[in-house]
Amino acid sequence: MVYLTRRERFSAAHRMYIPEWSDEQNLEVFGKCSNPSWHGHDYVLFVTVKGPLPEKTGLVININSLKEIIREMIIDKVDHKNLNLEVDFMKGINATTENLAVAIWNELEKPLREAGCELHCIRIDETENNTIEYYGKKD
Amino acid sequence: MVYLTRRERFSAAHRMYIPEWSDEQNLEVFGKCSNPSWHGHDYVLFVTVKGPLPEKTGLVININSLKEIIREMIIDKVDHKNLNLEVDFMKGINATTENLAVAIWNELEKPLREAGCELHCIRIDETENNTIEYYGKKD
Amino acid sequence: MVYLTRRERFSAAHRMYIPEWSDEQNLEVFGKCSNPSWHGHDYVLFVTVKGPLPEKTGLVININSLKEIIREMIIDKVDHKNLNLEVDFMKGINATTENLAVAIWNELEKPLREAGCELHCIRIDETENNTIEYYGKKD
Amino acid sequence: MVYLTRRERFSAAHRMYIPEWSDEQNLEVFGKCSNPSWHGHDYVLFVTVKGPLPEKTGLVININSLKEIIREMIIDKVDHKNLNLEVDFMKGINATTENLAVAIWNELEKPLREAGCELHCIRIDETENNTIEYYGKKD
Amino acid sequence: MVYLTRRERFSAAHRMYIPEWSDEQNLEVFGKCSNPSWHGHDYVLFVTVKGPLPEKTGLVININSLKEIIREMIIDKVDHKNLNLEVDFMKGINATTENLAVAIWNELEKPLREAGCELHCIRIDETENNTIEYYGKKD
Amino acid sequence: MVYLTRRERFSAAHRMYIPEWSDEQNLEVFGKCSNPSWHGHDYVLFVTVKGPLPEKTGLVININSLKEIIREMIIDKVDHKNLNLEVDFMKGINATTENLAVAIWNELEKPLREAGCELHCIRIDETENNTIEYYGKKD
Repeated sequence: MVYLTRRERFSAAHRMYIPEWSDEQNLEVFGKCSNPSWHGHDYVLFVTVKGPLPEKTGLVININSLKEIIREMIIDKVDHKNLNLEVDFMKGINATTENLAVAIWNELEKPLREAGCELHCIRIDETENNTIEYYGKKD
Repeated sequence: MVYLTRRERFSAAHRMYIPEWSDEQNLEVFGKCSNPSWHGHDYVLFVTVKGPLPEKTGLVININSLKEIIREMIIDKVDHKNLNLEVDFMKGINATTENLAVAIWNELEKPLREAGCELHCIRIDETENNTIEYYGKKD
Repeated sequence: MVYLTRRERFSAAHRMYIPEWSDEQNLEVFGKCSNPSWHGHDYVLFVTVKGPLPEKTGLVININSLKEIIREMIIDKVDHKNLNLEVDFMKGINATTENLAVAIWNELEKPLREAGCELHCIRIDETENNTIEYYGKKD
Repeated sequence: MVYLTRRERFSAAHRMYIPEWSDEQNLEVFGKCSNPSWHGHDYVLFVTVKGPLPEKTGLVININSLKEIIREMIIDKVDHKNLNLEVDFMKGINATTENLAVAIWNELEKPLREAGCELHCIRIDETENNTIEYYGKKD
Repeated sequence: MVYLTRRERFSAAHRMYIPEWSDEQNLEVFGKCSNPSWHGHDYVLFVTVKGPLPEKTGLVININSLKEIIREMIIDKVDHKNLNLEVDFMKGINATTENLAVAIWNELEKPLREAGCELHCIRIDETENNTIEYYGKKD
Repeated sequence: MVYLTRRERFSAAHRMYIPEWSDEQNLEVFGKCSNPSWHGHDYVLFVTVKGPLPEKTGLVININSLKEIIREMIIDKVDHKNLNLEVDFMKGINATTENLAVAIWNELEKPLREAGCELHCIRIDETENNTIEYYGKKD
């Protein structure tokens, strides 16, 4: 087994809040991250896939195929977007980085399997100090 | 003359657009950066001041004073905020990083002079690939 | 299970040495790191916790709670300090980064469990080239 | 068990290609990475070893010993070299970063065991966006 | 005047040598950088332009125009290429990073002026430790 | 004129204080940086030299010569040392990063001129947030 990680970046607006809660409740739990006028981040996404090494090519997966899948399935949908309002796979979900990582896993798992490798980890850096990792349900 | 640079970070939402233009015109000039639902960044701000070195202390300025001025005058007003809607010193200004750098210069120049040093440069990294620098009108 | 990592930094002085050994022995094993006049580092600390995702909030732990625990239990005690002379949880322990990682684990494990999540990993970057990770005794 | 990672860097030329294939086939699979006139990278190598902590020294392994082994066995052979033409342990192997990681693992496993610790992971960053990790056959 | 810097990256092979010199002379002056079998780098290119801020748009130059000019004039010609053998604007020039910076300046100065801004600086990071800057002949 | 910057790193202990002042006065001006038990940093030093480009070699200065001068004159004297107690060129000087930058300038200016290039800037990053630059007396 060899692990290959591709880094991609996207800039997006978001806020954390639970619709049924009052503004005060949201503020108490999520602090300034629940600002109703939004804020945003330069998110850094790391997609790690794993697979055996084919003796001939010595590639886990063609890096360009991996890049295209991530861009088509994720980056094109989130970059320069509002995560709460404009991203289909985040509809009805509180836009925490934890939930975003799980949602991106769910979007990428099947297409990557069809491309011949196995999704291992979704990592998102929200800022240089805060990082989320998700390894799927089996973990 | 010795130069001291303090790095601070803030996460904010923004969009670029000119109100009297149509959405199409804004889209043509500013592209995805004019998304009406906003997007955002983890902005990195570098404030450079300069001054002679007092023989006794060997400090251009007390770093804590510099930090407090930047936080009070800038970071507290822009962090986890919407640059277009919520920042007093950006009112009526298109929220490009260029304009933001000039506006931050105008906010900091006087307080820093009163604190005993001279503002030399405002640098903002919008993403890891795009950087703006402003050295004041004298440049 | 979702993993959340918080990065914090501290600047400290230290030396590596074993009191019962002669200066020559310490120098032989620890090299310049045993300099009796001390040296220091800008240590970077990564604390990784894990937990299930509560459906409502979508947060492993409130990031501000995590930050406060790390600052109160660790950063306030080590930042701008001498690791050998001034840090209670390093008393009588050779101040290697390995020992520091284990000691920080021991300080954080219980408070983090009480805060509702499980400590997964303590990682310390001593320099940009040297990194230590500790995953607890179960590993 | 404590994990220690040493970072080292090397600059090398390479190309990806399979000798029995035509230039067209190589171009189709490996794209611009198969350029017959070569290209190159500033590779970043992370070698992670693990071991129990000796109570006396508190060191997994002496960092200087680790550094010397990596430099003698790997860096001196690949730095400012052509990975396809000049590196003995890459002879007859397609110079992908995946194959390079496996080959470096095979070179380092025994010398590190003899030095008293166990090799845990070989990680190579080919660019800031592409990373390979290998944990040995047991994985 | 406001300064805008765009960062772009390219991976290339090169060697330093003077054709009229013997291998020994080249080795003496350029060391391992003159390896006849080539080596390579992940070069990081920073292009800084300057200009007044148009009151309306608040943009020194449209970042996409800048990006396209750099990619068309430079990146497409050097990425995954051999700087000595395959780059028209480096023909007959010793492939040092100094010479590369001057050559890139010469390629970009006119197209950027035609695009409405002034080239201020070409900076190239060859490795994380070695950086070259060129500000044109006027400096 | 072309500018070449070499990055070097060193880890050192220090404190800021003025001997004639009481501990209270030092604490008031320098805060936790005046801790009598020391603290330390992973300092990052950037030495920028400038010079015309010799047509033949295309090198401002041989990078190995530059590296050797910096290591012999500076790094060997400060790395894993106490800046206040053990560094000859810091004797009797308050160990601020400002004073350190000026002192390193004074050490390097003549040897670099004798090596055929002109010292342009000494930059020191004390932490990732605090940077000092010094361009000599002429500035």
